[in-house]
Amino acid sequence: MIKLAIVGLGRIGKVHLKNCIFSLPEVQVVAACSRSEQSLNFAKNLGVKALYTSIDDLFKEVDFNAVIIASPTAFHFEHLQKAIAHKKHIFCEKPIDLSLANTQLLIKQLEKQPVKFMLGFNRRFDPSILKIKNEISKGKQGKIHSIRLISRDPGPPPMEFLKTSGGLFLDMAIHDFDLARALMESEVTEVYSTAGIFGNLPLKSIDDVDTAITVLKFKNKALATVENSRNSTYGYDQRLEVFCETGMWSTANQLENSILHADAHGAHQPKPIGFFIERYQTSFLKALDYFVSCLLKNRVPNVSFDEGLASLKISLAAQKSSKENRVVSLDEIN
Amino acid sequence: MIKLAIVGLGRIGKVHLKNCIFSLPEVQVVAACSRSEQSLNFAKNLGVKALYTSIDDLFKEVDFNAVIIASPTAFHFEHLQKAIAHKKHIFCEKPIDLSLANTQLLIKQLEKQPVKFMLGFNRRFDPSILKIKNEISKGKQGKIHSIRLISRDPGPPPMEFLKTSGGLFLDMAIHDFDLARALMESEVTEVYSTAGIFGNLPLKSIDDVDTAITVLKFKNKALATVENSRNSTYGYDQRLEVFCETGMWSTANQLENSILHADAHGAHQPKPIGFFIERYQTSFLKALDYFVSCLLKNRVPNVSFDEGLASLKISLAAQKSSKENRVVSLDEIN
Amino acid sequence: MIKLAIVGLGRIGKVHLKNCIFSLPEVQVVAACSRSEQSLNFAKNLGVKALYTSIDDLFKEVDFNAVIIASPTAFHFEHLQKAIAHKKHIFCEKPIDLSLANTQLLIKQLEKQPVKFMLGFNRRFDPSILKIKNEISKGKQGKIHSIRLISRDPGPPPMEFLKTSGGLFLDMAIHDFDLARALMESEVTEVYSTAGIFGNLPLKSIDDVDTAITVLKFKNKALATVENSRNSTYGYDQRLEVFCETGMWSTANQLENSILHADAHGAHQPKPIGFFIERYQTSFLKALDYFVSCLLKNRVPNVSFDEGLASLKISLAAQKSSKENRVVSLDEIN
Amino acid sequence: MIKLAIVGLGRIGKVHLKNCIFSLPEVQVVAACSRSEQSLNFAKNLGVKALYTSIDDLFKEVDFNAVIIASPTAFHFEHLQKAIAHKKHIFCEKPIDLSLANTQLLIKQLEKQPVKFMLGFNRRFDPSILKIKNEISKGKQGKIHSIRLISRDPGPPPMEFLKTSGGLFLDMAIHDFDLARALMESEVTEVYSTAGIFGNLPLKSIDDVDTAITVLKFKNKALATVENSRNSTYGYDQRLEVFCETGMWSTANQLENSILHADAHGAHQPKPIGFFIERYQTSFLKALDYFVSCLLKNRVPNVSFDEGLASLKISLAAQKSSKENRVVSLDEIN
Repeated sequence: MIKLAIVGLGRIGKVHLKNCIFSLPEVQVVAACSRSEQSLNFAKNLGVKALYTSIDDLFKEVDFNAVIIASPTAFHFEHLQKAIAHKKHIFCEKPIDLSLANTQLLIKQLEKQPVKFMLGFNRRFDPSILKIKNEISKGKQGKIHSIRLISRDPGPPPMEFLKTSGGLFLDMAIHDFDLARALMESEVTEVYSTAGIFGNLPLKSIDDVDTAITVLKFKNKALATVENSRNSTYGYDQRLEVFCETGMWSTANQLENSILHADAHGAHQPKPIGFFIERYQTSFLKALDYFVSCLLKNRVPNVSFDEGLASLKISLAAQKSSKENRVVSLDEIN
Repeated sequence: MIKLAIVGLGRIGKVHLKNCIFSLPEVQVVAACSRSEQSLNFAKNLGVKALYTSIDDLFKEVDFNAVIIASPTAFHFEHLQKAIAHKKHIFCEKPIDLSLANTQLLIKQLEKQPVKFMLGFNRRFDPSILKIKNEISKGKQGKIHSIRLISRDPGPPPMEFLKTSGGLFLDMAIHDFDLARALMESEVTEVYSTAGIFGNLPLKSIDDVDTAITVLKFKNKALATVENSRNSTYGYDQRLEVFCETGMWSTANQLENSILHADAHGAHQPKPIGFFIERYQTSFLKALDYFVSCLLKNRVPNVSFDEGLASLKISLAAQKSSKENRVVSLDEIN
Repeated sequence: MIKLAIVGLGRIGKVHLKNCIFSLPEVQVVAACSRSEQSLNFAKNLGVKALYTSIDDLFKEVDFNAVIIASPTAFHFEHLQKAIAHKKHIFCEKPIDLSLANTQLLIKQLEKQPVKFMLGFNRRFDPSILKIKNEISKGKQGKIHSIRLISRDPGPPPMEFLKTSGGLFLDMAIHDFDLARALMESEVTEVYSTAGIFGNLPLKSIDDVDTAITVLKFKNKALATVENSRNSTYGYDQRLEVFCETGMWSTANQLENSILHADAHGAHQPKPIGFFIERYQTSFLKALDYFVSCLLKNRVPNVSFDEGLASLKISLAAQKSSKENRVVSLDEIN
Repeated sequence: MIKLAIVGLGRIGKVHLKNCIFSLPEVQVVAACSRSEQSLNFAKNLGVKALYTSIDDLFKEVDFNAVIIASPTAFHFEHLQKAIAHKKHIFCEKPIDLSLANTQLLIKQLEKQPVKFMLGFNRRFDPSILKIKNEISKGKQGKIHSIRLISRDPGPPPMEFLKTSGGLFLDMAIHDFDLARALMESEVTEVYSTAGIFGNLPLKSIDDVDTAITVLKFKNKALATVENSRNSTYGYDQRLEVFCETGMWSTANQLENSILHADAHGAHQPKPIGFFIERYQTSFLKALDYFVSCLLKNRVPNVSFDEGLASLKISLAAQKSSKENRVVSLDEIN
């Protein structure tokens, strides 16, 4: 049995909590920490006994092996430092931190401690994406020529969230950059990105955008295109295509139901399901399940701190590229 | 070169005429016969020189090898007798005749003459259906368990046409019965059919129906279901499924275009294309092309008079079954 | 809180148990009864405290409000009688009983007791089917012309199960007959069915079949076709189509994943997901959730004993029709 | 009636010739010019009487109104100058010329003559693309955010052709750049492109590539991505997506047939149809039909010389961008 604490009980923290309780029998959630009374009550109702508003008290008073860090990104640096210092195994939501310097500092601290770390890039664990990755890794599909990722949100988050989110590249596109890296099994060398504001939010005031097209060049000469938008009126659009020597592997959107309705106007199917909580429901569970199995089997999780660092650098390069309207080499990001 | 005459220049007669002129270089249409001045003009504009309103004059005055009989079904018996008597090769639209006795009479006359005969069951020549038939005939797909055919018209023909059409079973379902037989490569032994009137036409007054579900049992023990309707508000629905030992082969409808439109209500595709003239455009051409190649290579066309007789019997059995509300054996039809 | 006991812990009993524990917070499973030590251990591990091998002991010793009867069909009659006698609300798996006489006996006993009864026709609660039913019930879709249900299992159950299952019509097709009735909102008046054996099991020895095509006529003159097979080599095929005045509503199969793979041979999608446990995972939960909400709100569940009786009669009529090779009126079944 | 001459009888010239003869009754092909004896024979067999190997003789000896220039790109400049000088209406295959200077010279000559000019960007006339353009032009779809075009050939042309083709950007991507402009109804201001060689041809030796990803920025701030490849092992992939304020409009590939085959491995559909001759069969005809209707109604064709110039500039900018690995402004191309 793994004794686990959860820090942060927002939307994603709650998903992890429910997954631990209902679907991961090897895990016992012994404590939860949140600044929200309501969220702590949520945990209490699910049977979590030790409830904290202060992370320091949590670390001081409770005996546990591993911690899920699902607090807002702005707190990750502090929470990670404490978790590392207390020698807890860590499952941390993305991104590690918005600052490259902080991230590099953390990596040094982490190296000194006997602690397993996994970054919550849950989309890698989507069954369709995982299967595609496996098919490609086998080598029978030949060289990858290009990858395309489309990620469009059904609407923007509130300005309040966006202000501290790190912006579209660090908050949203980072998922796609990570997937592109994971599928390509090669490192990005150059980034071109162009971005704009097409929706109604006053994003200019916070130096953010709601739309971006990013082209990545990899060491193995292959290419990737990432299209991001916060303004998809037709629902949450999550597609990927891997174009390779022997053909193409792609994923379709998951739809709200399996109805096909034909009438005098044509044939109609429903919209893609909800938003990331619904679309990646399985992925969230599979990611955590993998983390737990790594702890139980004493293995190093393969979505490591370095992977988080690599994606952060691509995000920063894309941001720089779109601002300076030029191709940015990854060497410039350090 | 084959010298060909066309008798009947309605919708289908015109399709055949255009196919001969624009797509079958080995064919020369030397004459056309129609009671309609307008239709004869249509042929004239396409370069047909000998134009007739009387079929007797046509046979008397023109020298040719083969005739397409595309006149209304009520005239088939007369026109076929004359064509046989004049030793012309014959491509005849379905059904041969509404009367079993007449059909059996014709078969005897035909046997005595050195004449090739092909029935215009064009749907057998639809590229998708043809490919499925070939896949199944190879034997690698194992035994057929069941076949399902759905044939729904976008709307009923005018009462005027329906009055002499022979009714839904002999006019419409006969195509599906023929396809079921062709795919099954076995003979029908028993028929159950139930039918009704769901649209607004006064079909009861002419002892017809607009909807029928027919179940066929074959000598090889396999089954087929045929669903017919004249009232499809969502367009011309033409689908088939062959369920066999190793899986299922099916055809999807062909759509008006290849647009997928996604909006806040879902994802939308266009309706199936038009009606039979558009949907089976290729099939009409391929059927005639096959007939012509049989003449040129001196081969016997495989959509023979006997095939027409077999489908007629199934149609009559289905009609009888739906009227008498009981299973009808094919042995009863003679 | 509803105190609930589960009788029978086979595949479906276990599904209900897990749903109660993980997804229905208003339910407390206080006892379980099974003849299998292993199954009782399964319940124990999930926290069920009172475990029985004898249903009499269960009823004698435990205090509870409602019971799920998921025992083999052969035991339903006995278990239902006891549950009714002890005035427990009942959620019973289909079919109620294989015998019409027993079923009619039970209905009389039930009427005398203040007990709510719901039959586990879970497919009615499939989100896509439910939505179609709602769309049609609104009346905007016009009259239904016909319904078609295709239900093909990826393989037959073991002979051991089949021997006491009641046969394809009472065990398998009954789901489809129930759905047809539910969607049509009209009663079946006549049944035609034809069946056969296409797989390798010695079904003749137990007077069963593995394939059937059934045509239902309804009081409202509409028609339904039901296709059943135990031998689908391409996976679990569960589709329905409702053809109505304004168009068609249909459901597609749910696939194992959302990958589309294109290569030199074409484009490839995965098979339909698993078998009924996976395909109707949501339906099982929604059905039970509805039962629980009926108890909590003191409402009469709409999948009543009468609905079970009606579907049983259709199943018996279909069986009779296929054996006697004739149309069978529902009036003959009593 | 329009008297028309065809110059160039390669693959596309032959398509135009057949379209004129079989499908455009208002057109009379009075002459054809080709350096290939075989091609002239092809024209002769279709009834073209005046056959030339020298374009000068053609212009001198034959009386006609309009000319189709379908000769290799390298001859366009000479042939266009002669056609303009002889005051013939011109339907010219793309690209006009590989040199910007030549193209600008021609535009000046053209302005001085009472001659209608249309460029053969036939894909604009694809029924699906045309319908999407119409839907967007109506204004009800709101602002376009981005457009994506995927154009992948089933295999590269022979090196012999590639040597004088102008390279991937001027020969192949120019179609997509034109479509992006046409759909966007705005001008491109900046181009980023990155390209590579993934196939086996020695393209480096002729300074060409077989793969490119191009990002276009438009005056209206919207974006477009164009993906080109010469190495699609899964067939000819031609898709577009227009992502706009109210949703998304996209086109699917047209498949070889409409079969869906399900077996133990999944569900299988055929490959996309052939190559451009098959895929754009309708578009070639519709484009020429439009040209003919412009001549008959004395209207100015809307795929003008200026449109060709604009696409050429984008192609040159993309080529420059990929070579210099930087964003290129359209202002730099002149």
